[in-house]
Amino acid sequence: MKPSFDPAFRAQFRELVLWRRDVRRFRRDPVPRERIDALIEIATHAPSVGLSQPWRFVHIESPERRTAVIKSFTGANERALAGYSGEKQETYASLKLEGLKEAPVHLAVLSDDGTHTGSGLGQQTMPETLHYSVVAAIQTLWLAARADGIGMGWVSILDPAAVTKALDVPKNWSLVAYLCLGLPAEEHLDPELERHHWEQRTDLKDVVFTR
Amino acid sequence: MKPSFDPAFRAQFRELVLWRRDVRRFRRDPVPRERIDALIEIATHAPSVGLSQPWRFVHIESPERRTAVIKSFTGANERALAGYSGEKQETYASLKLEGLKEAPVHLAVLSDDGTHTGSGLGQQTMPETLHYSVVAAIQTLWLAARADGIGMGWVSILDPAAVTKALDVPKNWSLVAYLCLGLPAEEHLDPELERHHWEQRTDLKDVVFTR
Repeated sequence: MKPSFDPAFRAQFRELVLWRRDVRRFRRDPVPRERIDALIEIATHAPSVGLSQPWRFVHIESPERRTAVIKSFTGANERALAGYSGEKQETYASLKLEGLKEAPVHLAVLSDDGTHTGSGLGQQTMPETLHYSVVAAIQTLWLAARADGIGMGWVSILDPAAVTKALDVPKNWSLVAYLCLGLPAEEHLDPELERHHWEQRTDLKDVVFTR
Repeated sequence: MKPSFDPAFRAQFRELVLWRRDVRRFRRDPVPRERIDALIEIATHAPSVGLSQPWRFVHIESPERRTAVIKSFTGANERALAGYSGEKQETYASLKLEGLKEAPVHLAVLSDDGTHTGSGLGQQTMPETLHYSVVAAIQTLWLAARADGIGMGWVSILDPAAVTKALDVPKNWSLVAYLCLGLPAEEHLDPELERHHWEQRTDLKDVVFTR
């Protein structure tokens, strides 16, 4: 039977989207594996081009592998900092951009670029839709996590080749996102980058057009 | 005040994710522009790398531009069909892959690749995260639409260069998705591609790993 979603649900869904946040301050309390895998189950109902379902979720439990990822972040972050100057550099240096050391859960999300699932339907003129499918799963996971009281952060300041190597996954899998999950140490409605004056929200009239 | 999401909301959120569906069969009833723009407003609260908010939403109202998009689909779809053979080709030919002619709303979603918003934060080693941010907004829009009883379909069988040209947008904007929206003519829990035996759901154990 077709479900219907009432105004109260819709209002709460909007609140969920607004409160999602990229979390970089985690409590160290462990989160049971089953709780994360239940979020992944929801994420696998995201749309995928041609039903290709290219997402591969890798729990990183090995301390050595985690250390390699943190090393990759540190190097990339130092190079990024060096690329800014003056006040912007000072602001950048003051931002907390990841929670890799504190987060109890590290989850890499990759795309199996060699998958035959879906038989290539919908990918022929826009092959990037394979990775886009993985991103749709990640955003679904993010919302499901927040609804369950779990915070998530997406770390993109790292060398994807170095991280993929540290993960020891098949050659044709490519890294789409490296995620940290855990209980948030604090909760905010506004993004960290807005709160610390890195950037502001864009007005709707500047992103909606008619042709 | 920090919101909390109870088990009933979480169960309904999961139902929303499962019932989302890529809709290709639309009723022709018009959908008011404000209703679509309210969905876009929610989508702009999606995560974006460095708060870059690169998403640009373009309502396509001109019949000439819509015709150009349909022409691009038709050509790409014929080429795709020719690439399959035997039974797979027959199945492909029987699938309804888009609702471009019936859908009352055509919405192109592009990335402003030249934006300075966010000052490049988080994009330096993984520049693809700019487009990924746009995809996160699209999946958010998709869920918000379904919660509001509106169906959405993502058409990727088209030539992005031809479509971008038909839209007459700034040179450094690139097409991430061409979407159709409207009231669904039918509702299904299972994907069209599963119902018509193109592909099946992958088992969870084949997509979750530990390292």
